[in-house]
Amino acid sequence: MSHSSSPFISDVPVAQAMQAWHDACVAARCPVHVPAVRVPVGDAVGRVTAEPVWALRSSPALDSAGMDGIAVRAADTVGAGETTPVLLGVGDFEVIDTGDPLPAGYDAVVMREYVHRTSDGRAELRAAVPPYQHVRTIGEDITASELLLPVGHRLRPVDIAACAAAGATELVVRRRPKVIIVPTGDEIRPVGSELAPGEIADTNSLMLAAQAVEIGCDAQVTAIVGDDPQLIIAALREAAIEADLVILIAGSSAGRDDYTARVVAEAGSLAVHGVAVKPGHPVVLGTVAGAVAKPVLGAPGYPVSAALTFDIFAAPMLASLEGTAPRERPTTTARLARKLASSIGSDDWIRVRLGRVGDDIIAAPLPRGAGVLTSLVRADGLLVVPAGLEGHHAGEQVRVQLLRGLAEIGRTIVAIGSHDLVLDVAASALRAADPLVTLASSNVGSLGGLVALRDGLCHIAGSHLLDPDTGEYTLPYVDRLLGDGRDIAVIRLVHRDQGLMVASGNPLGIAGIDDLTRPDLRYVNRQRGAGTRVLLDHELNRRGLDATRISGYSREEHTHLGVAAAVAAGRADTGMGILAAARAFGLDFIPIAREPYDLVLRASTVDDELLAPLWALLQNSDFRAEVESLGGYSCAETGRRIR
Amino acid sequence: MSHSSSPFISDVPVAQAMQAWHDACVAARCPVHVPAVRVPVGDAVGRVTAEPVWALRSSPALDSAGMDGIAVRAADTVGAGETTPVLLGVGDFEVIDTGDPLPAGYDAVVMREYVHRTSDGRAELRAAVPPYQHVRTIGEDITASELLLPVGHRLRPVDIAACAAAGATELVVRRRPKVIIVPTGDEIRPVGSELAPGEIADTNSLMLAAQAVEIGCDAQVTAIVGDDPQLIIAALREAAIEADLVILIAGSSAGRDDYTARVVAEAGSLAVHGVAVKPGHPVVLGTVAGAVAKPVLGAPGYPVSAALTFDIFAAPMLASLEGTAPRERPTTTARLARKLASSIGSDDWIRVRLGRVGDDIIAAPLPRGAGVLTSLVRADGLLVVPAGLEGHHAGEQVRVQLLRGLAEIGRTIVAIGSHDLVLDVAASALRAADPLVTLASSNVGSLGGLVALRDGLCHIAGSHLLDPDTGEYTLPYVDRLLGDGRDIAVIRLVHRDQGLMVASGNPLGIAGIDDLTRPDLRYVNRQRGAGTRVLLDHELNRRGLDATRISGYSREEHTHLGVAAAVAAGRADTGMGILAAARAFGLDFIPIAREPYDLVLRASTVDDELLAPLWALLQNSDFRAEVESLGGYSCAETGRRIR
Repeated sequence: MSHSSSPFISDVPVAQAMQAWHDACVAARCPVHVPAVRVPVGDAVGRVTAEPVWALRSSPALDSAGMDGIAVRAADTVGAGETTPVLLGVGDFEVIDTGDPLPAGYDAVVMREYVHRTSDGRAELRAAVPPYQHVRTIGEDITASELLLPVGHRLRPVDIAACAAAGATELVVRRRPKVIIVPTGDEIRPVGSELAPGEIADTNSLMLAAQAVEIGCDAQVTAIVGDDPQLIIAALREAAIEADLVILIAGSSAGRDDYTARVVAEAGSLAVHGVAVKPGHPVVLGTVAGAVAKPVLGAPGYPVSAALTFDIFAAPMLASLEGTAPRERPTTTARLARKLASSIGSDDWIRVRLGRVGDDIIAAPLPRGAGVLTSLVRADGLLVVPAGLEGHHAGEQVRVQLLRGLAEIGRTIVAIGSHDLVLDVAASALRAADPLVTLASSNVGSLGGLVALRDGLCHIAGSHLLDPDTGEYTLPYVDRLLGDGRDIAVIRLVHRDQGLMVASGNPLGIAGIDDLTRPDLRYVNRQRGAGTRVLLDHELNRRGLDATRISGYSREEHTHLGVAAAVAAGRADTGMGILAAARAFGLDFIPIAREPYDLVLRASTVDDELLAPLWALLQNSDFRAEVESLGGYSCAETGRRIR
Repeated sequence: MSHSSSPFISDVPVAQAMQAWHDACVAARCPVHVPAVRVPVGDAVGRVTAEPVWALRSSPALDSAGMDGIAVRAADTVGAGETTPVLLGVGDFEVIDTGDPLPAGYDAVVMREYVHRTSDGRAELRAAVPPYQHVRTIGEDITASELLLPVGHRLRPVDIAACAAAGATELVVRRRPKVIIVPTGDEIRPVGSELAPGEIADTNSLMLAAQAVEIGCDAQVTAIVGDDPQLIIAALREAAIEADLVILIAGSSAGRDDYTARVVAEAGSLAVHGVAVKPGHPVVLGTVAGAVAKPVLGAPGYPVSAALTFDIFAAPMLASLEGTAPRERPTTTARLARKLASSIGSDDWIRVRLGRVGDDIIAAPLPRGAGVLTSLVRADGLLVVPAGLEGHHAGEQVRVQLLRGLAEIGRTIVAIGSHDLVLDVAASALRAADPLVTLASSNVGSLGGLVALRDGLCHIAGSHLLDPDTGEYTLPYVDRLLGDGRDIAVIRLVHRDQGLMVASGNPLGIAGIDDLTRPDLRYVNRQRGAGTRVLLDHELNRRGLDATRISGYSREEHTHLGVAAAVAAGRADTGMGILAAARAFGLDFIPIAREPYDLVLRASTVDDELLAPLWALLQNSDFRAEVESLGGYSCAETGRRIR
């Protein structure tokens, strides 16, 4: 694998990169549009018109009744009134239903409610009617020869119905663009394979193909190609025969980027290598030569980069090939939960969670790593910090592209604070009971949660902070952090066992806290402000043990599961956490303490409709049984308001 | 066909109607959800999770390199600095690429840019590194056993990629709901049939099936069933065997509504007949009995009613069957172009065109008839005036559901005023040249256009108003209506022939304006404020003719094509309009005057980027040739700024 530096990688702004790519396509004589095809009108939904649609017939095709009633001649009704009814004889009116053509000679309709039929079959009217009352005139909806739809219009259900009403049985549309995805990399394996260490499942192809299908394209994934430039070039050329756009996925190695650029340069032409976008920087744009040249996108291997690269570059190119505008994401304004630093020179695509707290929509940035795909999964929106900005202040109003609907976001309970598996179980149970309810929890530790509540960034803070001086949980911190705590309610979620997680069978014979300073042990800690770390410090202090003597004290994980995973992987010998996390990873567990885990919130919000499903859940016996079955939990006080 | 009154039709508010429908489904033991199925993870996009997804493995599965460089032991680098480099011998570091697992014994990565390799193969470092620098730790993205996705989540491309990364090869999802549509009515014919007078093409089935497919359902349309209750009941029962939701389309007759309600009552149970929604009022909600009962929606036959009924009732029911929240339309706020009256007691669904004029998004209501499908085709948004409101004032800020993206709306040239076919040709040509550009014209007559320009509701007003006193076009009106007209620019679009349109062969021997008062002639006029009507009045005045002597003078159409259609249909014998409209309908044409047609706009906006493509088009020789080929047009002054 190449380790050379990147002489021609650059930071091309998005608009300029798109233009360079288009120019390269023109120079290589790539097709401007995918071909036009004639399809039955019913098959045209989602396709883009390749020709304007002119109406072939009018709708209604004839003057017709707009109501049920009788057809009359308006002139015959002149003078009709409450005291001067007009009687129309048989032959001077005709019964008519909505949609029926107006019979010849008549020019108005009287609603049946206003017609009295006499016993001898005549119709009595007590009001005159103007000509063309309740008549849908020919062409009221569509007039023959008018422009119904322009070229470049993506057809929706109402459009095809209107085209059919205007006499079209077939429409000339752009056929579905075809995207062929070429995954590369010696370490890449098909999804579903058993993975040896260092092997990576080809989840990017799955995702990119689904993204292409989602915007109305056909997608195909080739076999995985190893790290051989000639094989990759051959695969690109083969793909370019059938494809309208080829996507080459580099492995996740940075060394691969140069490699991809060279392969594209050799397979056709290289237009851009490196764009001013984070994550997504090492994008490659160019063309593949052949009987007919085709555009190619070299997507980075990190999954977040690959997904965003599709949105930013592939989707507009595909829309252009269809001769229409790319789809747009809706946007909203939101208040930023915390300060956000961004590097000058690149557009920073920040994934955010959104929640409505009070009158504001709050945007909380998610982890920014290009490898953290769950940051996109959990994101409600995308915030683009443009290349010229160094970031945003906490509380600043920002514009966010929405990935979820605002109504759904408005039904989301935002929990920030300590992590507990019970919150995951509750999230799942709430959603199962009502698909409109979401419980979104961000794990920043107990202290971070209380600060977020103070700053109006969440509805609920999950906390299990022990006050070493009093031995009391939660309340002393509430008083200290949240003013006098008068507007604060505290609801007990569970009691749970905290302890040391060790490898199955406890091979190192760890007995308790006193063993942690053993030189042969590697500890894995939680981050500052985590209640579990406070508990450890308290236990160390009680015993007069010095934290600096613990190897790995400064190594931080952000969740119980993270600690358990580290121990399970043999990266550490022990760490503190809850029994449920140990069980999830098949670890042994040495109990240290039983502690309460509380939900802290504004007292004024306890009765909010938003939170009612959560309080109901805490009383639900099935839920309590499920929690206790996790192990190490007691629901004896679940749902009790302790302040 | 029944003409009885509607004893049980009512105005049930939407939320209450949905609840009554759900209750009826529960009472009839309709399935709560469509069945769950296990599908390969790649096939699950767009489906809804039927079980929560818990991570089966961590991602990364091992500690791995986050950068290209060398793996080191952090402890070995302590003390390294610019003047005190540390040299790592072969065996004390390992070359590593991004994504590679961290080799046993190492705990940090140094980027290749900061490593100097000596000639004897050692690595020189000039800075110490902390443990786990540039290491992606196990579970950084996904930790085994964590909740990845809750139940009731509609899977997107990133979701399935994350599920695959977490070890899922299959997912348990709700299968696609199946919608079966049963069109009814003796007058309904399949799309593509030759239609006899009074027959109507079954465009509603086409549309409703496409709406169902658009939200991820399977859709099927049965054969058209005639107006026989027993046949319809049999068709419903047959459909209910396979369908998750049955949609029965009544003909467009109001008499049919009762009929549909009775049929549903007999086929299963009737929950709701009549909802407080306009258009859409005569909706029927209920169930169809069978081995397993299924929900049924009776959709009104008017196309706008049918389309909205699907959105308001069918889509939420289908989402509920999938166990998730219905999709949401994005919204925006807009300023209402004119006063909007609405009846108390019903939610009024108003279709609006949107355009950005200055800093405002302007919403212009479209025709409100339930039969005017083009009002939905041309709509950029939907404005719901709730049942409790009598309407909105002109200029009021309203919330609008978006049917088009805001960026696209921002690239829309809003033209309000007189109608001319050249605007249709221009709209089509502009779009063909750049799919991002839209020219949206609303036809309210020349005078209405100038008023709209005055009120900041459009970019351009199309006008051909003759001042009878001076014989001059456009400018006198601009001075009168738009202050002193100093900020006004006027650009000539075309000259065109106006004349009398008469049936082919001119069977009534109409020679000119003087014939219009003949008692045997039926005239069709344009609306007040239309330039063509001003021209007629001018011609009448010149000759001392009395308008009240013209039969049909008060009968109004709003476009040239509308007038031509009326003459072509034999509903009138003649009307004034342009040659192109006469030609479109194969009519004869008696020229009366050649007049200019002008575009009026704010002088300060002439150089707006938005309008540049239009000015370029007016200079384009292909466009001019196309316009002149329509007949009756001269482009000699096209594009000339006359003020």
